[in-house]
Amino acid sequence: MAETAPLSRFEVTFDVEGRNDAKFRNDITVHLRGPHPASVELPTDEGPYHGGDGTAPYPLAYFASGLTACIMTQLRAFARRLEIPLTTIAVKARLHWQAQQRGREPYESSPVAFTIDLDLGGAASTEDKKRLIEAAAKGCFVEQSLKPGIVKHRLKVDDDWVAI
Amino acid sequence: MAETAPLSRFEVTFDVEGRNDAKFRNDITVHLRGPHPASVELPTDEGPYHGGDGTAPYPLAYFASGLTACIMTQLRAFARRLEIPLTTIAVKARLHWQAQQRGREPYESSPVAFTIDLDLGGAASTEDKKRLIEAAAKGCFVEQSLKPGIVKHRLKVDDDWVAI
Repeated sequence: MAETAPLSRFEVTFDVEGRNDAKFRNDITVHLRGPHPASVELPTDEGPYHGGDGTAPYPLAYFASGLTACIMTQLRAFARRLEIPLTTIAVKARLHWQAQQRGREPYESSPVAFTIDLDLGGAASTEDKKRLIEAAAKGCFVEQSLKPGIVKHRLKVDDDWVAI
Repeated sequence: MAETAPLSRFEVTFDVEGRNDAKFRNDITVHLRGPHPASVELPTDEGPYHGGDGTAPYPLAYFASGLTACIMTQLRAFARRLEIPLTTIAVKARLHWQAQQRGREPYESSPVAFTIDLDLGGAASTEDKKRLIEAAAKGCFVEQSLKPGIVKHRLKVDDDWVAI
């Protein structure tokens, strides 16, 4: 049945306004566009050690939450579509970058690896859980925006972590 | 002088814990590791139209803020290092994705473009502002994690927007 269903496309657009007047506090407003718009204030700051006032989360903390939550959300959504039973999702992710600089010149940064370890509750088989993770990764807007090969997923199977 | 300064490297690591028990609410805690650790709660949810309860921002809203704030933060930091005068930073960014699906199968998503329009205050020359933006992009941990070519920067010069 699904083979003959029509192929459809949709767009997802966010607009962002940012303002910085001094130091490291960034006032940021994010707008989801489309038929069901939503806006939210998501300011950022650096901590005192990095020259900021610690008035808001680090930019990379938002990025880290967005990356982790993206696949969690798609796991929940696609479990329904694939009719794979899923109770709880427990995730541990690690985002690791390196940077290099010469003296006090601006540094250059690069990602090392983003590992996402997934413990999926429910009676689904290991094969079905792997299939669900693969579908969720393909549907995750954040992961599909990243350089290929950076994100590594692992599934908890009994007491082991199995690479997907 | 800077030519002979020693090359140094540093690491940036964030750990994330995520938990989802039902529906689309994800409870997320983000930990900055290293000598100056910091932790923050950054939960996400979907809006009612998307099956959620709207109790927290969308995952992609965090991603959008993180992307925008990342380069703003590096502009501020590197303006000092490059001794380029910078008063205010005003940004408008647009993040655009597409997704396609067959019937109710899981969809596959892909980025179209992330455009970041920068209006930099201060007496710096256009050339210096461009140099600053190029350095900030190379130092931005988020941008360096993305597929090459997705992010497009433009600088406001008088009444025009000039591609960097």
